[in-house]
Amino acid sequence: MLTVSKRGFQMPASPIRKLVPFAEAAKERGVTVYHLNIGQPDIETPAAIMDAVKKVDMPILEYSHSAGNESYRRKLAAYYSKKGFDVNYDEILITTGGSEAIIFSFFACLDPGDEVIIPEPLYANYIGFACEAGVKVVPIRSSIENGFMLPAVSEFEKVITAKTKAILICNPNNPTGYLYSRGELTELAGICKKYNLYFFSDEAYREFCYSDAAHTSVMHLKDISDNAVLLDTISKRYSACGARIGALVTKNKDVYNAVLKFAQARLSPPGLEQILGEAAVDLPDDYFDQPKQEYMARRDLLVSRLNKMEGVDCPNPGGAFYAMARLPIDDADRFCQWMLEDFSLDNQTAMFAPATGFYVTPGLGMNEIRLAYVINRQDIDKAMDCLEAALKVYPGKTN
Amino acid sequence: MLTVSKRGFQMPASPIRKLVPFAEAAKERGVTVYHLNIGQPDIETPAAIMDAVKKVDMPILEYSHSAGNESYRRKLAAYYSKKGFDVNYDEILITTGGSEAIIFSFFACLDPGDEVIIPEPLYANYIGFACEAGVKVVPIRSSIENGFMLPAVSEFEKVITAKTKAILICNPNNPTGYLYSRGELTELAGICKKYNLYFFSDEAYREFCYSDAAHTSVMHLKDISDNAVLLDTISKRYSACGARIGALVTKNKDVYNAVLKFAQARLSPPGLEQILGEAAVDLPDDYFDQPKQEYMARRDLLVSRLNKMEGVDCPNPGGAFYAMARLPIDDADRFCQWMLEDFSLDNQTAMFAPATGFYVTPGLGMNEIRLAYVINRQDIDKAMDCLEAALKVYPGKTN
Repeated sequence: MLTVSKRGFQMPASPIRKLVPFAEAAKERGVTVYHLNIGQPDIETPAAIMDAVKKVDMPILEYSHSAGNESYRRKLAAYYSKKGFDVNYDEILITTGGSEAIIFSFFACLDPGDEVIIPEPLYANYIGFACEAGVKVVPIRSSIENGFMLPAVSEFEKVITAKTKAILICNPNNPTGYLYSRGELTELAGICKKYNLYFFSDEAYREFCYSDAAHTSVMHLKDISDNAVLLDTISKRYSACGARIGALVTKNKDVYNAVLKFAQARLSPPGLEQILGEAAVDLPDDYFDQPKQEYMARRDLLVSRLNKMEGVDCPNPGGAFYAMARLPIDDADRFCQWMLEDFSLDNQTAMFAPATGFYVTPGLGMNEIRLAYVINRQDIDKAMDCLEAALKVYPGKTN
Repeated sequence: MLTVSKRGFQMPASPIRKLVPFAEAAKERGVTVYHLNIGQPDIETPAAIMDAVKKVDMPILEYSHSAGNESYRRKLAAYYSKKGFDVNYDEILITTGGSEAIIFSFFACLDPGDEVIIPEPLYANYIGFACEAGVKVVPIRSSIENGFMLPAVSEFEKVITAKTKAILICNPNNPTGYLYSRGELTELAGICKKYNLYFFSDEAYREFCYSDAAHTSVMHLKDISDNAVLLDTISKRYSACGARIGALVTKNKDVYNAVLKFAQARLSPPGLEQILGEAAVDLPDDYFDQPKQEYMARRDLLVSRLNKMEGVDCPNPGGAFYAMARLPIDDADRFCQWMLEDFSLDNQTAMFAPATGFYVTPGLGMNEIRLAYVINRQDIDKAMDCLEAALKVYPGKTN
């Protein structure tokens, strides 16, 4: 009999998407749904970068270099230089979204059966990419009690085996919004050096940090240039998720050359959208001020509303546009579905992502949700009105 | 010590790219190089589809549906209907180039260690995608003696094992240009039915067939809708290689749903270029007449020039824009490099792809080259002048 592959079975379905039919049904009943469930920014894509594509005048849309257009890579090197670290254009490989940077790093550095340590809760698609690559995700738990700070070095050492090849962090973090300090990253670098592990750093949200301290990239760290692989994307930085343009950056020539072979097999990253990405580097330096202020104001509103609710705890996130909140509930999946199916306040409700989908360890995240603050403040306020009212009547309330 | 993965080592480097430095050196010496080495069409990308992107008016370039925009999938279903087979839009998944359709078919249908049978010579990147997926390519030899027709069913049966999960063909074929007949495809379908194998059909060159018989798609075949997976791309069809827009089409719901999970992990295919792909479906029905006539005239010129050369044999290809020729030489890799390094005729030379890179079995293709007729007829003629003269003086000539 024809069957799909084991990995086809095992590949996790999106934890966010399974609630979509319930949201659609709610809308069909005429209920307004505030979407805090998915990280699709509502900030407009800068017109200047869309216009760059409109000005394209090329008779043939040819394959680009497999590592991406050299002109774009040179500009990106200049962008990174402004961020305080120096990489050459030939240490940058343009990928099809940050997604491809992640899978290429797995392909090039890990073999099937090898292990990558990732603090959980984690970006759920890491699990999918690991499944594709036959790689095992070994989670170590970061906890809402201390705001999801980096687990102690001893926790990493407990799970390091002969199969461990890499540590992956997302900084600032999706789903927690936690911004790792330079001290924490230096500790991680120490572990990577000591155990010969790759240090994969997903910095998709680099530009959205809300503390006074500047964002620390893995490329800022000393003496680990052979271990360091920066995973990047323009998706969130310029509200251009649909462009599918990312980058993998490493000074390790062996890794770069291996990644290049994977890149050559798929020929090239998207051509028109590389032009958009290149134009984005030319945006004025103060471009991020406005979106950053907006996200910060939303964060402040959201977190303060959440922490005023009885039994709710939400650590103040230092970056990205996500917050994790602990709620007085029995089961986050059930609660989020119930909010769409059975609850409304003045014909409105809100959609969140149950945290269970961001944990690898079964049973964790049962009373946590992720909130993406990608809607305007007025709507965030209304969504919080809904949540506050819902928690008063939810049948699975625990306190 | 930090090392790259075994698959990073094993991943084949592109067989075409290794000659590039020699071509560049030739150009630096002032030698004109005619490029018949790579399948980058010189036909202009239709202005209408580039313009469709320029007319885009969307404030935010958002993630699209992971399976691609529904409007595009519906149009593509209508295109396939014109080609004589009916598929629903929800049996189509838009991929990032044909490349992603291939890797998704491997991921969804085969597990590491499983085998896919592919007639060789074959599109070299199949080997790379198989390496990524941990899948073993089992080649069966098609031969230049009979124009690369499908090997006998008995040849397939000889190599089928418990690990065999699929047969993959490219029709019309890259690198041979061979166009499989409906009879051959029906034979293949019979094997797939008998042994419960998936039938992957890469139809990138569907629109470029030069016989009176219409192209037969795997989707035209009877009673194998559960086995059939069509792999498609707009790259060659509309000279839009840089767009990275392809499609995977299957009526097998289990396969479709597994593929969708892989698609969800990488979020969505490129957004702007989906608009370009959708616009391509609206091109007038006679759009292909002109490029097809042009390719056919080039083929006729190329093949007749080749077969007039002493000791050269080139079967007449039925489709695509490739021809394979057997030359009276010792080593195609050495010959192609020698043509760039040591040969010129009136300060001109030509670049071809040595066939060795298209064979999995070591030692095959040593006296064969692939010629891509993606340059104009005048240049093809000059390239053939170079080849003809080169064969007279090449030190490794065998007859």
